[in-house]
Amino acid sequence: MKKPLILVTNDDGIAAPGLRALVDVAKQLGDVVVIAPDSPQSAMGHAITISGPIRLNKVNVFEGLEAYECSGTPVDSVKLGKYVVLKNRRPDLCVSGINHGSNASINIIYSGTVSAAMEASIEGINSIAFSLLDFSWEADFESGKVFIKQIMQTVLENGLPEGCKLLNVNIPKLKEHEIKGIKVCRQAEAFWAEEFMEATDPRGVPYYWMTGEFVLRDEGEDTDIKALEAGYISVVPSKHNLTVNTAIEPLKILEQATPILIDK
Amino acid sequence: MKKPLILVTNDDGIAAPGLRALVDVAKQLGDVVVIAPDSPQSAMGHAITISGPIRLNKVNVFEGLEAYECSGTPVDSVKLGKYVVLKNRRPDLCVSGINHGSNASINIIYSGTVSAAMEASIEGINSIAFSLLDFSWEADFESGKVFIKQIMQTVLENGLPEGCKLLNVNIPKLKEHEIKGIKVCRQAEAFWAEEFMEATDPRGVPYYWMTGEFVLRDEGEDTDIKALEAGYISVVPSKHNLTVNTAIEPLKILEQATPILIDK
Repeated sequence: MKKPLILVTNDDGIAAPGLRALVDVAKQLGDVVVIAPDSPQSAMGHAITISGPIRLNKVNVFEGLEAYECSGTPVDSVKLGKYVVLKNRRPDLCVSGINHGSNASINIIYSGTVSAAMEASIEGINSIAFSLLDFSWEADFESGKVFIKQIMQTVLENGLPEGCKLLNVNIPKLKEHEIKGIKVCRQAEAFWAEEFMEATDPRGVPYYWMTGEFVLRDEGEDTDIKALEAGYISVVPSKHNLTVNTAIEPLKILEQATPILIDK
Repeated sequence: MKKPLILVTNDDGIAAPGLRALVDVAKQLGDVVVIAPDSPQSAMGHAITISGPIRLNKVNVFEGLEAYECSGTPVDSVKLGKYVVLKNRRPDLCVSGINHGSNASINIIYSGTVSAAMEASIEGINSIAFSLLDFSWEADFESGKVFIKQIMQTVLENGLPEGCKLLNVNIPKLKEHEIKGIKVCRQAEAFWAEEFMEATDPRGVPYYWMTGEFVLRDEGEDTDIKALEAGYISVVPSKHNLTVNTAIEPLKILEQATPILIDK
């Protein structure tokens, strides 16, 4: 039987320990091609490079595996992976991560890890973003591996439900035996209340540095945040179509209104 | 009566003609504060700057209006606008644009213009992204102004429907009298089939430059693409919650599965 082709990417860069952990699992399930940014690209969201060139280098950092680094964003990596590296080889699955840090709840919007997976899903490829709730470079990526393998294998064997090509998976910072299991859930409503550190640089010019506090505005028991707090791995089926279908009818008042004259 | 406070931003930068056109309309409806990137930031998606400093300068480019430029992304601009510039002044509306170029259909995902408006909507502020289907710097932003004013005024007076804090508005490249009106619609399914231009730089090192072709995969009559093709302004109620609710139940098979052992 032909092994599935798995495209592996991330946003923490080609040398990140989380990427290595994900490659370890992926190569047990299929043929693996890796393409990742050549430098950390956290919080890049769905940014792409359109006004400048992108570099692509073949690298030998995963023994026996075809791997590339690219100078662009996580989404650039996936686009280069699909259209330049793989060309006519269509991946059966794209996995992104393991991200160093949470991409649960509203973090999905800022995340380069999820955006990379989403880019493949826009192309119709089943995709999974994996993140571990530990920001440190030396985070323990071993504990979640059996669950990651289970999720990848299930998606490879069964596909994904109608209207969904993307899973956002977050793994609690726990030992393997402490992880309670997997919960399929919805994205919790939340936002980041920012506090900008204000300081001055060595030349006396002021600058701001973003920092913030996660504010949960969701009491639901069926959210990713609740699942993670309870010791479960959260799986949120996700999409790139942002339409609020229920708001279309009430907004039709806009279609009836008369254009308002502009004061010249 | 107290005038509404309107935060105006964009992704093409503080000097873009599209921003000036949007400011022209906004100041007829309320008190305006402008904060925008100090350089063009197209296709930055929801990127934020977390690993470095951001600069903020007060500028005098809109006569009589409080305005700032920031060295970060469009989303950084809105965050700085809310937490540093406005602080305790809560905007009644955030508008972003007018973008030079379409943000209809899947472009919403890559757009810095929409992401800036979305950032305000995540904070619970009613927000509207405006884009004109003309990439050129000298695009005609006059034709759409009466419709932009109408949409902004309607949202200021009536708010937005439950579950929606963000409108993605696209304006066809037509004269005012040629615009047929406004259609409230859904985001069309599409993707960009990329073709990377491959070339070598002056030192002989190869590079890639992204270019692509928009591929519509949606036959629906109720989409933004169809509305624009028919000469209407498209309004898509949009959100930041990406969950595919209908996929949660079928995916519960993941919760029952047994973890798969990892080959060490």
